[in-house]
Amino acid sequence: MLGSTYGTLTTDSRRARVIACGEQPRSTVHGSTGTDETDATDVSGRPLYADAPDLDRFFRPESVAVVGASDAEGRPNTGITRQLMAWAERVGARLHPVHPTRETVFGLPCSPSVAALPETVDLAVLLVADPLPLVEELAESKVKFAVAFASGFAETGSEGANAQERLAAAVRRSGMRLLGPNTNLNAFERFRDDLDGPAIALITQSGHQGRPVFTMQELGVRLSHWAPTGNEADLETADFISYFARRPEVGAIACYVEGLKDGRSFLLAADRAARAHVPVVAVKVGRTEAGARTAASHTGKLTGADTVVDAAMRQFGVIRVDGLDELQDTAALLARARAPRAEGVVVYSISGGTGAHFSDLATAAGLDLPELSPGKQDELHQWIPAYLNVANPVDNGGHPVGDWRGRKIIDAILADPSVGVLICPITGPFPPMSDKLAQDLVDAAEQTDKLVCVVWGSPVGTEDAYRTTLLGSSRVATFRTFANCITAVRAWRDHHRFTAAYASPFEQAPRTPSPSFRKAQALMRPGHRLSEHAAKQLLRAYGIRVPREQLVTSAAAAVRAASLVGYPVVMKASAPQLAHKTELGLVKVGLTSASQVRDAYRELTDIARYEGIDLDGVLVCQMVERGVEMVVGVTHDDLFGPTVTVGLGGVLVEVLRDVAVRVPPFGEDQARAMLGELRGRALLDGVRGAPPADVDALVEVVLRVQRMALELGDDLAELDINPLMVLERGQGAVALDALAVCH
Amino acid sequence: MLGSTYGTLTTDSRRARVIACGEQPRSTVHGSTGTDETDATDVSGRPLYADAPDLDRFFRPESVAVVGASDAEGRPNTGITRQLMAWAERVGARLHPVHPTRETVFGLPCSPSVAALPETVDLAVLLVADPLPLVEELAESKVKFAVAFASGFAETGSEGANAQERLAAAVRRSGMRLLGPNTNLNAFERFRDDLDGPAIALITQSGHQGRPVFTMQELGVRLSHWAPTGNEADLETADFISYFARRPEVGAIACYVEGLKDGRSFLLAADRAARAHVPVVAVKVGRTEAGARTAASHTGKLTGADTVVDAAMRQFGVIRVDGLDELQDTAALLARARAPRAEGVVVYSISGGTGAHFSDLATAAGLDLPELSPGKQDELHQWIPAYLNVANPVDNGGHPVGDWRGRKIIDAILADPSVGVLICPITGPFPPMSDKLAQDLVDAAEQTDKLVCVVWGSPVGTEDAYRTTLLGSSRVATFRTFANCITAVRAWRDHHRFTAAYASPFEQAPRTPSPSFRKAQALMRPGHRLSEHAAKQLLRAYGIRVPREQLVTSAAAAVRAASLVGYPVVMKASAPQLAHKTELGLVKVGLTSASQVRDAYRELTDIARYEGIDLDGVLVCQMVERGVEMVVGVTHDDLFGPTVTVGLGGVLVEVLRDVAVRVPPFGEDQARAMLGELRGRALLDGVRGAPPADVDALVEVVLRVQRMALELGDDLAELDINPLMVLERGQGAVALDALAVCH
Repeated sequence: MLGSTYGTLTTDSRRARVIACGEQPRSTVHGSTGTDETDATDVSGRPLYADAPDLDRFFRPESVAVVGASDAEGRPNTGITRQLMAWAERVGARLHPVHPTRETVFGLPCSPSVAALPETVDLAVLLVADPLPLVEELAESKVKFAVAFASGFAETGSEGANAQERLAAAVRRSGMRLLGPNTNLNAFERFRDDLDGPAIALITQSGHQGRPVFTMQELGVRLSHWAPTGNEADLETADFISYFARRPEVGAIACYVEGLKDGRSFLLAADRAARAHVPVVAVKVGRTEAGARTAASHTGKLTGADTVVDAAMRQFGVIRVDGLDELQDTAALLARARAPRAEGVVVYSISGGTGAHFSDLATAAGLDLPELSPGKQDELHQWIPAYLNVANPVDNGGHPVGDWRGRKIIDAILADPSVGVLICPITGPFPPMSDKLAQDLVDAAEQTDKLVCVVWGSPVGTEDAYRTTLLGSSRVATFRTFANCITAVRAWRDHHRFTAAYASPFEQAPRTPSPSFRKAQALMRPGHRLSEHAAKQLLRAYGIRVPREQLVTSAAAAVRAASLVGYPVVMKASAPQLAHKTELGLVKVGLTSASQVRDAYRELTDIARYEGIDLDGVLVCQMVERGVEMVVGVTHDDLFGPTVTVGLGGVLVEVLRDVAVRVPPFGEDQARAMLGELRGRALLDGVRGAPPADVDALVEVVLRVQRMALELGDDLAELDINPLMVLERGQGAVALDALAVCH
Repeated sequence: MLGSTYGTLTTDSRRARVIACGEQPRSTVHGSTGTDETDATDVSGRPLYADAPDLDRFFRPESVAVVGASDAEGRPNTGITRQLMAWAERVGARLHPVHPTRETVFGLPCSPSVAALPETVDLAVLLVADPLPLVEELAESKVKFAVAFASGFAETGSEGANAQERLAAAVRRSGMRLLGPNTNLNAFERFRDDLDGPAIALITQSGHQGRPVFTMQELGVRLSHWAPTGNEADLETADFISYFARRPEVGAIACYVEGLKDGRSFLLAADRAARAHVPVVAVKVGRTEAGARTAASHTGKLTGADTVVDAAMRQFGVIRVDGLDELQDTAALLARARAPRAEGVVVYSISGGTGAHFSDLATAAGLDLPELSPGKQDELHQWIPAYLNVANPVDNGGHPVGDWRGRKIIDAILADPSVGVLICPITGPFPPMSDKLAQDLVDAAEQTDKLVCVVWGSPVGTEDAYRTTLLGSSRVATFRTFANCITAVRAWRDHHRFTAAYASPFEQAPRTPSPSFRKAQALMRPGHRLSEHAAKQLLRAYGIRVPREQLVTSAAAAVRAASLVGYPVVMKASAPQLAHKTELGLVKVGLTSASQVRDAYRELTDIARYEGIDLDGVLVCQMVERGVEMVVGVTHDDLFGPTVTVGLGGVLVEVLRDVAVRVPPFGEDQARAMLGELRGRALLDGVRGAPPADVDALVEVVLRVQRMALELGDDLAELDINPLMVLERGQGAVALDALAVCH
């Protein structure tokens, strides 16, 4: 198998890994009791394991019933029946037509019902307008899977959605699994069986949108499955991801997603794929819905739903792309290329211009283009004129590709231990040069376990070197644009980096409430916004530091409190429904004497009276001045439930929305990664002579807030710590103000 | 001509405009004297008009000499001679071989020298290793143009660069114009003459990199010229832009640029193209050089050279793209599509998924997808089932494209006055549907003056509907990816928006020094950094407001100054080479009494003594607190000379580098556009109840700083106003601190 870039070794080792950590999670679960825990839930009641149905008999049934089969001229079902018969023959399944009145269909004996069939079928394809009445009968006949083509369900409005819910409920009761409704024939397409190596498994919510990936078969890229999930009344995208992640022939999963049925099931499926080292590449429509679902609280406003989708995908290593062309190219590379031997990329070209241009874009995109060693450069200069640059990019000036030197150069580059990838952009097809260059690259790729990529830049694409030589090789990854090559190579590197370091957060997710939980519960006031003081007690319950403070209801008590808290103090009006205190003048800072405290007390209560605000008192708080202001919060996403956000406070969060978001559960690594996503992150490291901030304490607060979000679940509608003052390293972090809304 | 989307009307009207405003700028120049001013310069001595050589006889010579012509087997010059002969025959030029010893070349009589030729030639192609010795002879023979293929010049290092400079000097003396050295045969390629309509003119600094655009001829896109500029010892990219902008057959100019020879000549050429409404699309290598050329001052650090290139291109309407595929697709659309009738884009698809996906990406990219009127939707529902969404995107569900309804739908969409563009993404080629759809789109495009685009999403690209139907039409713009279609359509819209509003800043550029200039000159100290006080005097010279302040050298004088300036005051140490005053504790703010001023004076002078800083005094300044802190500055770019930057002050400029840059000259519109580019721009509009800032005053400061940069030219190495406090609207802006470095 040596020399097989796209060989099956990778798949085999991946398969072994799936069995080790994916199939038997019980044995590796942190704190596991050793019993079967696939039904285990976390402290919020959410599942910890993907519901991963065995779909072998769906994709490879031994027997199939076609309910509503027809051979009558001009009927739509006739064409479908014909295609299903051809497919059944290809996959070796016995096909049984079912129709209430027909005796035969295309010469096959036809039964009046599934119950009347001579055998139990694995799969029933339902070509009827209303599949609901059939569900019970199919289940009684022990049918494993059904596919419902009928449309007119949730895609048409609320009436259809109700009908779909009735269908879904019937299917749940039945124990049978259903694909659809509103699906199509894509699962039963003709898959080329003459292609080797790891394949792409495709999941799409639109047949038309899946077609370009499927069509890659014609360019020599193997496809193994296509799941057109339709309305997902039962089986959903996540089920297919979970299933494909276990299939040895699947090298990558490509998805076209318009909407997710359930956030959690998607994350669990992505987790399963990440554990199995199977890449998932997805187009997810909804880039511009960001503004549509804004939450009421401060940080909530800053994180639209698409931002949450984006974050969730990144947390679990799903590679999100925007175009179908990127989906094709990235999935094909990830399916077929081995794990990197090294991350260094060498750009090799017959033109200095091409090398410079490609390198510029690749470097801007974050690929690593190491300078080749002087020794290697000397070696290359044996064959390449001395005045040409061979440091990386390697410019051979053109002529050496035309003779024996061409192959020598390629081999010499690939032999360099710093090199994991050789990319050769060929923008001008010039047969005397490019034909031989293409062939040399294909030949060299056969002899190496490193990645060889070619960008065939001609817009024409009918050239022989492209169609025959390059696409004829399963070892060379061929692209049409610089951008897609760079996107795919970066995704490939990132995928392997990600899975190598991946630890499933579900294994560490809390299952039982912490001691904090009972304290927190006692503070919750369903349906209400908590006062600042109560919200801070909630934070204290979870071990998040708040300033020394007292709630007082008289000027004299305020003065006593100030001397206990210690001058200087901050005073703030406190009331359950109070927001925008600063704008209303309800915050006084830097008070240094009893008389200032007395005056402040009077002023705050006067303003509150004037504004008609019913105070529960005035907070006298310790003043904390020196630190970096951050915002940490919890909001709820329709799809994913509670999410945790962290951002830079003050003007940065106000104007620039500089926040990062994560969907629980996530570990410390992700909490740290959130900070890395902030554009103003340098503030935490100290700018203009300021000392570095206590990032560890900040990370700890984020994790404690996550714990709170998980334990309080839907009862905590929103939490917003703003600001959290992060002090100098070693000094901790203090929540200076907090807002909490109970559900 | 009606119904011709890509007709010649556009070109004719454009040509008329060129003649009106491009060819005779004298008549429209602001403050023109009526004399020939094409040699006019601005106050900094930079030219105001492009040096636009007449290249007609270069591209269409009547007679050509080939110096070094050969017909000897195996010689490289033999192949070149053969190609030049074929080209000369195609363009109808008389070709004369020149060689010191040969009698004939390919049967043509051969002269020993150009001087010995029977006629004066327009163009001499030099196939000799060293063209320098020939320059004088060619000029004496009245040769208009020479092309030097020889390599080994600036591209090989400093020795080559010296040789190139000698060649360039000889050419300058000669009056002849030279293309090269280190160029190639690209200008003499075979251009298809069977294609109509506006063409792409191509300018490249690498033959290999120009090939993909040139190859678009094979897809039916007309190319008119190819200028391979090589090392640009004489003729440069800008010269060809200027020339092509005047050619009636040129619809768009496509450039591949590695480095610009001169910033100013590029801007003048782009200005000429903008006046003529001819789009220029460019790949410019250098995205990652940003960090390489950092300037010493604060704002300078924030503006790498690539940022300047990017800004300069935007100022003059040059459309910058990153990939060669984008260059092809954008240039082809811009060359061939008429000006928009409306900006509204309708996405029309046979699949709801495709429409949703495309619309999502198009909206995210800033295209305008208006909702169709209820009346239009009713009209479409005559042919499209009622449950499908036709608001925009229009989803026809597939079936209507197969019959007479298909064309009706397209025509109905195009008839809507809000619609300027119809885009039909076809991701799955399904001949029974897509063949007819493609033909209907081509037919409809023939009958409309609106833009019709198709995205052919199949990765295969050999389908008949694509190759024959779509590419066979010059009316339909066909793309292969959503992204490139969206990029091109947006560029097309933006180009027409830009040129419609374009006013050349060169016409308004100052030619004579302002009264400020003399005052400013007196303050300059060549080779020195000015003290804060002196830098502020420089600002005052240009009418930029600074706080009331006095420079004092004793505590007593400080107290007197404070009462004149008015309490509270700020006190700062002042010394010419002093930066980072705040970090050193050399700034005291909010001083409210004589005793505080005395103490501060003592403390500042103590610190300065301890730090070994030689103060020229202490500044006692008016304290200005309420406003938005901005940064305005001048730095020098190697390519473009002085540039003006503006950014948000404080942490935003410190950490986020939130700055915008422009290359003078620019007008008020661009100064306002700079503010629009700032991510933190909302701060100027007022956040958290703050009043809106005086944006007009800020714009005025930017323009005054530009004037200063132009008048002081290279003498002012750097200027940095940090912060400029922009007060509440109507209150102006005050430069609180300033740094100036003289050259």
